[in-house]
Amino acid sequence: FYYTPANLCATFCTAYDVKGSAALSSQSGGIGMAIIGFSRSAKMGVSAIVGLGNKSDIDEDDLLTFFEQDDNTQIIAQHCEDLKDGRAFAEVAKRVSKKKPIVVLKAGRTSAGAKAASSHTGALAGNDKIYEDVFNQSGVIRARSLRDMLEFARGVPVLPTPKGENVVIITGAGGSGVLLSDACIDNKLSLMTIPPDLDAAFRKFIPPFGAAGNPIDITGGEPPITYVNTVKLGLEDPRIHALILGYWHTIVTPPMVFARNMVEVKNEMKAKGIEKPIVASLAGDIEVEEAADYLYQNGIVAYAYSTEIPVAVLGAKYKWARGAGLL
Amino acid sequence: FYYTPANLCATFCTAYDVKGSAALSSQSGGIGMAIIGFSRSAKMGVSAIVGLGNKSDIDEDDLLTFFEQDDNTQIIAQHCEDLKDGRAFAEVAKRVSKKKPIVVLKAGRTSAGAKAASSHTGALAGNDKIYEDVFNQSGVIRARSLRDMLEFARGVPVLPTPKGENVVIITGAGGSGVLLSDACIDNKLSLMTIPPDLDAAFRKFIPPFGAAGNPIDITGGEPPITYVNTVKLGLEDPRIHALILGYWHTIVTPPMVFARNMVEVKNEMKAKGIEKPIVASLAGDIEVEEAADYLYQNGIVAYAYSTEIPVAVLGAKYKWARGAGLL
Repeated sequence: FYYTPANLCATFCTAYDVKGSAALSSQSGGIGMAIIGFSRSAKMGVSAIVGLGNKSDIDEDDLLTFFEQDDNTQIIAQHCEDLKDGRAFAEVAKRVSKKKPIVVLKAGRTSAGAKAASSHTGALAGNDKIYEDVFNQSGVIRARSLRDMLEFARGVPVLPTPKGENVVIITGAGGSGVLLSDACIDNKLSLMTIPPDLDAAFRKFIPPFGAAGNPIDITGGEPPITYVNTVKLGLEDPRIHALILGYWHTIVTPPMVFARNMVEVKNEMKAKGIEKPIVASLAGDIEVEEAADYLYQNGIVAYAYSTEIPVAVLGAKYKWARGAGLL
Repeated sequence: FYYTPANLCATFCTAYDVKGSAALSSQSGGIGMAIIGFSRSAKMGVSAIVGLGNKSDIDEDDLLTFFEQDDNTQIIAQHCEDLKDGRAFAEVAKRVSKKKPIVVLKAGRTSAGAKAASSHTGALAGNDKIYEDVFNQSGVIRARSLRDMLEFARGVPVLPTPKGENVVIITGAGGSGVLLSDACIDNKLSLMTIPPDLDAAFRKFIPPFGAAGNPIDITGGEPPITYVNTVKLGLEDPRIHALILGYWHTIVTPPMVFARNMVEVKNEMKAKGIEKPIVASLAGDIEVEEAADYLYQNGIVAYAYSTEIPVAVLGAKYKWARGAGLL
């Protein structure tokens, strides 16, 4: 295992040095190595990485109990092939998830996977419906794939906790707006019905052929100030609780100009005590990759060439907040 | 639009120069820009990129008809918000998909997405169940997300067409084997039941604490020759039709050593007339990213830190091959 606050590397693997708040564990050395590689590549801040192997001594609920009281950990993400004591896990997870998000990737979901798990760690992968119920009842965010587990562990602690269910999409690309709307439904997010006064306020900033409503389509040819004005309004109005941004690469608003402007607006609002989760989907040429990195490092969860992943991360944050009784 | 065989760039966007066999189109300029950025970043070979906008003249079935006879195009991937003439599309798609894979990302799947589409392009996004039926009946591979559409367009033409349904997983990481098995079921792939003689043949190459069966778990500490021997056997035996590789980063078999060995084995078999689809999932530290790129550029569809995406690409190839009557 690794525990970065103490610079501790108790494995034969390469040291991990990006300190942060995510504690990850796996029941497989291979998946553990994938965690290390992804974390380093994505500059994900990690407090601990633990390999549990066959769990002859410590298991998942022991880790939950430890990380519950560990001030260096803000989110706990676990890969497992079985839970030796489902009842104990449910009990501990129910308590811990009230304080910190727990993400679980349960391997061996399917009959073929369960068979492979049994030959790998001797795991009795069990009936997946039971796991689904246990996770739901104990407020656990279930990851459907390895990449989802990693993206949730990276993104969920970056986002502030929303104060309500009203999500608004602001997009420069109408096509992204449609896909982002689909992703909201897939991830159980509520697109706010914009009240007339707020609709009128947004319309002041966007061209007449744009579309208010939700998504708010500012259209593709707009200068940075249109993104700034609409996002500022979205953050200032207390009826809006989270923003999803769709950026379209143009020479009028190049990717890094967009990114720097968004971080400035976010920080300006933060100085006024306003913090809301913001995620972004960037459509454009390869320069959008640098912009997505910059946004992520500055607290806006952003992805290039994907409308689904940023919304899934926001959905995971909401799922946790609901389970913890914060909404 | 772009048509790379003629070095033609008929847009105000930056030129696209990686020639290849994927023809992509979108009903949104923003999604079109995402296609360009992803393609360039992933070095995806492209024959054409077309923006259809409001489709006042040309629409999706016209493009299918054109790319059907275009020798520079091997796969057609389309983003759309509606189909103006579903019957015409179904008819043409049914014919074209027998020759070339067609991938469709239908935006406006959900009620919220459909509403956004109507305000974006005036599209009547329609009942999604009807679209699902149309796509299924006409052999179209449906992408659920933008990233899936892009990964399918990139990966499906790289893979040779399988000659049967028997898929075998060979993995150095048992944990990856379990997740890869789950992904096979998710993507409707059949894990072959290994006959006794083949099982005995694989066992000769792997340590006694490894697991034959399927996945074949060669275990993590093995040298390159174990990967080489098992993969060679997997390619040589005519009862096996496709391979999924799980690699675990160790100092005994570093990522680029693994990658070069796999490409060598693949090319050696190709020289003997043996071609089978191979996909790979790489678990390890950041060096696996370079190895994944090298594998991809050499005909093995490989991803770092993901067990799901490589299997989804193989699943898309199988879906097409079944629909085209090749299996």
